[in-house]
Amino acid sequence: MKNPAIILVNPQMAENVGMSARAMMNCGLYEMRIVAPRENHLSEKAIAASSGADKILHNAKIYDSTQDAIADLSLVYATTARRRNMIKVVETAEAAACEMSEKANSNVSYGILFGPERTGLHNDDVALADKIIEIPLNPEHCSLNLSQAVLLVGYEWYKKQISVPSAQLITNTSKLADKEKIKHFFDFLDDKLSGCKAFQNEEKRPSMLINLHNIFQRGEITESELNTLYGVINYLSQK
Amino acid sequence: MKNPAIILVNPQMAENVGMSARAMMNCGLYEMRIVAPRENHLSEKAIAASSGADKILHNAKIYDSTQDAIADLSLVYATTARRRNMIKVVETAEAAACEMSEKANSNVSYGILFGPERTGLHNDDVALADKIIEIPLNPEHCSLNLSQAVLLVGYEWYKKQISVPSAQLITNTSKLADKEKIKHFFDFLDDKLSGCKAFQNEEKRPSMLINLHNIFQRGEITESELNTLYGVINYLSQK
Repeated sequence: MKNPAIILVNPQMAENVGMSARAMMNCGLYEMRIVAPRENHLSEKAIAASSGADKILHNAKIYDSTQDAIADLSLVYATTARRRNMIKVVETAEAAACEMSEKANSNVSYGILFGPERTGLHNDDVALADKIIEIPLNPEHCSLNLSQAVLLVGYEWYKKQISVPSAQLITNTSKLADKEKIKHFFDFLDDKLSGCKAFQNEEKRPSMLINLHNIFQRGEITESELNTLYGVINYLSQK
Repeated sequence: MKNPAIILVNPQMAENVGMSARAMMNCGLYEMRIVAPRENHLSEKAIAASSGADKILHNAKIYDSTQDAIADLSLVYATTARRRNMIKVVETAEAAACEMSEKANSNVSYGILFGPERTGLHNDDVALADKIIEIPLNPEHCSLNLSQAVLLVGYEWYKKQISVPSAQLITNTSKLADKEKIKHFFDFLDDKLSGCKAFQNEEKRPSMLINLHNIFQRGEITESELNTLYGVINYLSQK
């Protein structure tokens, strides 16, 4: 499967190139291309900032011009923070990620342009791209550090490659208690509360019972948690 | 509407606190709480790193303990990069953002805990939270800078607050050409090609015509672009 190439156009600071490599690694992206960097992308600063992603820096290819850097690509996106006076399709990072993922299994090779830190991409470079990616952010404060722009676009791309449950209960070595174990627990509690006047009061008992059931059954409860409850109740009832 | 409070627990470097403020501002989040920071969150370094989001730093509240920092909140998420030996619901940043947005119109106040740079949140702090947020990232390289974690969680939250078209053609002052204008353009082109043998060849003509239509109608074409085409064709046909 083809992953998008991340193309840094005229990055100014080696540290930002290193941090961009780190962000790429976070998102399972490995192909970095750099157009005419101002500083050495293999400097100590860059390597340190990459936080273990120096392999990406070592494998990065350097080009003289954006034209050269995209020559072998069929689909190129330009990331911009502000609108240009240009007739072009603008997509969210998520929509672009969708599109790239759909094309990833075909033979289309694609890349994403990121501009220099201060100015962003030059209009001439934006014009070379097929489409524009705009990351939806607070319009009053949408300027991002270079590596953060790489991270957000990469993150959207990575999310499309994986399938993660949106929510799950981590039970570790324990497992969810089945309904029989839960019934056993309530019988046990009932027994321990046999001396409690409020609980045995015919008027109050039903709503207290419902409340107790709801408290302990609101979330899924594990066997390990039930055991803790047995221990607590045993101790309290001995006092 | 309630926005989540961003709670930095024992941040080590003032610069990271500043960058986190910037990330918050990017995502329309304004309430920062800091638990026992190691460095002064209003230092020059912090202010510089906040890149214009110093208002968030100035308004940040400082607490002695995580307990104090979350005392007035009803729903607390803990962000972690690694699984803890703890029975707890783990959600993606997107799922948590959904949940927070749904609760945003009710009176529930909520916050998100972020741990110190090196170690992440202490287990005792994770235990105080209702749920865990795990950002889906490359498992072989999922460590994030503090401000990047804030940015990704904030970004997911911000996306739920806004409605942005996933893709749109930006036409600036021009507008999409209607079908009559497009027909007019093809008639004009047809006329200019009247001397072209290939185009007037009865066998080749239909497929060339279809190709031309498809080229210029693949994307939506604007009036401004049509005018450019008229100019180009006029010039070429005069030569």
